Amino acid sequence: MGEISKATLKRYPVYLKALRKLSEEGKKKIMSAELSEYVDIKPTTIRRDFSLIGQLGKQGYGYDVDELISIFARELGEDYDEKMILIGVGRLGTAILNYNNWNHVAGEIVCAFDLIPEKRNKEPKVNVPVYHISQLKEKMPKGCEIAILCIPSGAQQIVNELHDLGIKGIVNFTREHFVLPEGMIKRDVDVVSTIQELVFEVNSMNR
Amino acid sequence: MGEISKATLKRYPVYLKALRKLSEEGKKKIMSAELSEYVDIKPTTIRRDFSLIGQLGKQGYGYDVDELISIFARELGEDYDEKMILIGVGRLGTAILNYNNWNHVAGEIVCAFDLIPEKRNKEPKVNVPVYHISQLKEKMPKGCEIAILCIPSGAQQIVNELHDLGIKGIVNFTREHFVLPEGMIKRDVDVVSTIQELVFEVNSMNR
Repeated sequence: MGEISKATLKRYPVYLKALRKLSEEGKKKIMSAELSEYVDIKPTTIRRDFSLIGQLGKQGYGYDVDELISIFARELGEDYDEKMILIGVGRLGTAILNYNNWNHVAGEIVCAFDLIPEKRNKEPKVNVPVYHISQLKEKMPKGCEIAILCIPSGAQQIVNELHDLGIKGIVNFTREHFVLPEGMIKRDVDVVSTIQELVFEVNSMNR
Repeated sequence: MGEISKATLKRYPVYLKALRKLSEEGKKKIMSAELSEYVDIKPTTIRRDFSLIGQLGKQGYGYDVDELISIFARELGEDYDEKMILIGVGRLGTAILNYNNWNHVAGEIVCAFDLIPEKRNKEPKVNVPVYHISQLKEKMPKGCEIAILCIPSGAQQIVNELHDLGIKGIVNFTREHFVLPEGMIKRDVDVVSTIQELVFEVNSMNR
């Protein structure tokens, strides 16, 4: 399997997530066209990806869902879990939780943490349980390695704690600077900077 | 003024926006420390930026708000307006409108467009008027050059229309491919890809 590209590997968690959902729904067999609608990946790409792991499917019959699940789970590591947590249920965190269009495409946000969970569990209502930040250890989903960070301040302390609890990846929506503990990685999503940059470029065009 | 860096220039629209707000509120003078809280830029940076345009302020007295406004408006072009529109008030568009933490930092979303505005003006309520997409020309704010694109499909046609109406910059939240008309620029914000990439990287660490 040394030939499998990074682009293909990136789709494994997406496949695993979708197949687990389908299996929960009682699905035993799936055609590439049907899976395609579920994961938003072209049927030809799906068929090629599956052929690389030795799954050719059967004409007019499709792929065996459970067989694919066990293959992808093995490929991703037995402990692999696509569950994610979100820290900081302010306006941005709430927007992300309510948007949460990622169910079939990446991971699933299973719960959130905040300093004032009793407030966050009221209006505007979010669709996952919100726990107090002090319950991080207690409520951390088993196997969870990804945290979405939306807190306005105090990022460093939280990041250190998350590191100690086994979180390896941070999706960073904060604008605060923090030092990443060794063995952790992050990706920044900075909408404000993105808009500012665009405004700047547009102004440059006008000069 | 040939010495002013890109980083500094990027802050001009931020300053202009904040100063206009402050002026509307009746503010005549402002200290760098006070402005700093408003724009989330350090006072030392503000003082350096302002000194580059010949404004040194007065110790214990601050800067003249209207003078700064006229300078930044001239620097950015007399027609400069930080108003933005948003296209596509689905779950993502609604989240962005409700988050809208950008009022003091970049531009202001003044209105939105959708195929079913009557639905969008109901629940969950957004805080700007939503017009039908066919009213783009009629309802386009004067001087507006930036559009935030959140539609699930049909991006190409909308982008072409926006181009004809004078939009120069697109903040692109869609995942659909489209060809950018000449003279237009865009910045992509792709939260799903960002999360997928992070998941991939974390999995690579586990191997």
